[in-house]
Amino acid sequence: MLEKAIKDLEAQGKAAKAASHRLAFISTDIKNKALNNIAEDLLARKVEILKANKKDIAAAKTSGMNEAMLERLILNESRLEGMARDVRAVAVLPDPVGEVFDMRTLPNGLLLGRKRVPLGVIATIYESRPNVTVDISVLCLKSGNAVILRGGKEAVYSNRALAGVIRDAAARAGVPEGAVQFIDNTDRELVDHLLKMNDVIDLLIPRGGVQLIDFIARNASMPVITGGIGVCHTYVDKRADITKAVAIVFNAKVQRPTVCNALDTVLVHSAIAAEFLPKMAKELGKAGVEMRCDKEALSLLRKESQLNVKAASRSDWGKEFLALIAAVRVVDSLDEALAHIEQYGSGHSEAIVTEDYNSAMRFLNEVDAACVYVNASTRFTDGGQFGLGAEVGISTQKIHARGPMGLKELTSYKWIIFGNGQIRP
Amino acid sequence: MLEKAIKDLEAQGKAAKAASHRLAFISTDIKNKALNNIAEDLLARKVEILKANKKDIAAAKTSGMNEAMLERLILNESRLEGMARDVRAVAVLPDPVGEVFDMRTLPNGLLLGRKRVPLGVIATIYESRPNVTVDISVLCLKSGNAVILRGGKEAVYSNRALAGVIRDAAARAGVPEGAVQFIDNTDRELVDHLLKMNDVIDLLIPRGGVQLIDFIARNASMPVITGGIGVCHTYVDKRADITKAVAIVFNAKVQRPTVCNALDTVLVHSAIAAEFLPKMAKELGKAGVEMRCDKEALSLLRKESQLNVKAASRSDWGKEFLALIAAVRVVDSLDEALAHIEQYGSGHSEAIVTEDYNSAMRFLNEVDAACVYVNASTRFTDGGQFGLGAEVGISTQKIHARGPMGLKELTSYKWIIFGNGQIRP
Repeated sequence: MLEKAIKDLEAQGKAAKAASHRLAFISTDIKNKALNNIAEDLLARKVEILKANKKDIAAAKTSGMNEAMLERLILNESRLEGMARDVRAVAVLPDPVGEVFDMRTLPNGLLLGRKRVPLGVIATIYESRPNVTVDISVLCLKSGNAVILRGGKEAVYSNRALAGVIRDAAARAGVPEGAVQFIDNTDRELVDHLLKMNDVIDLLIPRGGVQLIDFIARNASMPVITGGIGVCHTYVDKRADITKAVAIVFNAKVQRPTVCNALDTVLVHSAIAAEFLPKMAKELGKAGVEMRCDKEALSLLRKESQLNVKAASRSDWGKEFLALIAAVRVVDSLDEALAHIEQYGSGHSEAIVTEDYNSAMRFLNEVDAACVYVNASTRFTDGGQFGLGAEVGISTQKIHARGPMGLKELTSYKWIIFGNGQIRP
Repeated sequence: MLEKAIKDLEAQGKAAKAASHRLAFISTDIKNKALNNIAEDLLARKVEILKANKKDIAAAKTSGMNEAMLERLILNESRLEGMARDVRAVAVLPDPVGEVFDMRTLPNGLLLGRKRVPLGVIATIYESRPNVTVDISVLCLKSGNAVILRGGKEAVYSNRALAGVIRDAAARAGVPEGAVQFIDNTDRELVDHLLKMNDVIDLLIPRGGVQLIDFIARNASMPVITGGIGVCHTYVDKRADITKAVAIVFNAKVQRPTVCNALDTVLVHSAIAAEFLPKMAKELGKAGVEMRCDKEALSLLRKESQLNVKAASRSDWGKEFLALIAAVRVVDSLDEALAHIEQYGSGHSEAIVTEDYNSAMRFLNEVDAACVYVNASTRFTDGGQFGLGAEVGISTQKIHARGPMGLKELTSYKWIIFGNGQIRP
């Protein structure tokens, strides 16, 4: 049984590889046509998709899935419309493939440059939300990559239906068969096997919780882009503008607390803490934010009895809350703030609020993270906000791509060299 | 014993990581000073280095190492002078760190761009040639990276002496202590442990044979850049200029046969084979090249009794010879040549010789390799030849960097964002 499934998986890998060779040089027109077909069919085939989704929902309810996860699993007509809109938005983005850069003539007459090409085959292992099936497929197709999809067990009916729609719609536009591969079997052993398939998979993108991502990073034999985990700090310097600081901390924590670029820890300079913290706490308190404070912060905030304030435990530093909770710590210097961020940050997004030029520049230079802000909310870390169009994810590693990844980050390049008989002396 | 060595290794990793944080923003002046000190000390401390090298040579002779490998292991005064010259050449290259690109003002007033930064800690596992110790250390230091060196057992005395010279010379210039770590213990188990240290190592670069590289790619938990293996084809099209074709094939095979960008297989169109092959074989024959031919090529060349011509075995297709041996195959079309390259190529360097515009463009578009040539020798695949200055290696993967890698390819970037109170709506 497992042997058969592994054989099937290998056949899927080979088919994706074969498709990727042709996909690499089909026209932008065909790729855009495929995307528009997908958008169309998501709505035209909604009955089938929603019926499949109902099966997942029923199974999830039987298994006692919590409300938050259930909410992410649900598809309905308006969500399908939203997905179709997102697909059309990718269709109108410029095609990264084919761009030529660094082109120049060498002294020996060779004309040499780098031409942007797709990576080849991208595999993704993801959890829960069925819209990832569409998101990733569409971004891969637009950037000329074949895709192997391995979603979670809890969404298998929805994912299968969506993958079917994508496959059919893409084929109708002339995309090579095999370009979209869905792994039907959700056995864990197949993931282990997938992680070994570095002969056909050029890049693996895990999407899910920290455990999944860490497991994949440690066990994959092919390149992996990890990210999506953000332990984000905002440091309020002694020379911060208090009004800006309150607004920035509030926005970073409250505007959408369940995402990776939301604030987790506020660091505040001791010289400004007595003035700043009560003002900050008042605003955060209105939004229902629980504040987990170090001793100094606690002593400044404890008197405000209406607030949800308590002592931080050690594990609160470096924790990604994904909820209306913030850790709060008073530091005695910028250096202490930098050291805290170095120790506890996840290299995602970090901010300083200050009117002091040198503190701003030191923070920008010395913080080692994908996105480093002066006087702005970390919530801006996003492909759309950064002007990249679509977003594949947010990389917290330094290889290949860092921070928000757009279509270009799903490509590589090859060197092309036009000669007329040159040989190396 | 092993436990102690693992503890030491982890301490080295931590020291390298700590050093990398400061190394990331030291000035170019200090880095260049470090490099010039290294160049100086390679000569000033030659007695010590050559004495260490003699120990390796003696051990190698006892163990019966073959002449070719022995030759690569040997250091002498002129080789040290060459190494010092190479180090000084890197010192004068522009520093990639600190470059800011894609900088722009967003509609909301945020000023946003990407700033080039070092990767952090680069580890390298390499075999044989002690000069790799110097090469990689110097490229890492210039690009602001800390380095962990794990050389082969056969060169351990030489490597240790060279690493000591580098460490001292760098420290004298003000490079943070810990930036250069040499793994003294060559137990294989330590490599296994090193491959798990993805908390401190940002990139791993293996340098050596195909087995080493494959083992590391499959087992490392951190990003790896693989390369250096080249199965290179030159396809002589039916509309090739025969003079150019002979010169290009000869150069690609003979100019330096022991390197990865040397020709391995000649593919020739059947319409031109009868004219081309004898001319090619005559030149290759003069240089002592053994030709392993398919049936058609053999029938055209067999009559030339003075040539070293024989029937190819199946394993000759896709073999990296690294010697004066070439496989020769006659194909009936460009498509057949493309299919052969897709099946047997290693994605390194591939060339077509043709005067036909459409064949040239199809080859450039459709061949999936780091470097694709029209009418030029594959021997040009080299960081120096491509104008990158130094060369870290030649990547045959598509992630992060492809083809010759210079200093820039040892860097990442971070997004820097200058705000004045912006929050996300």
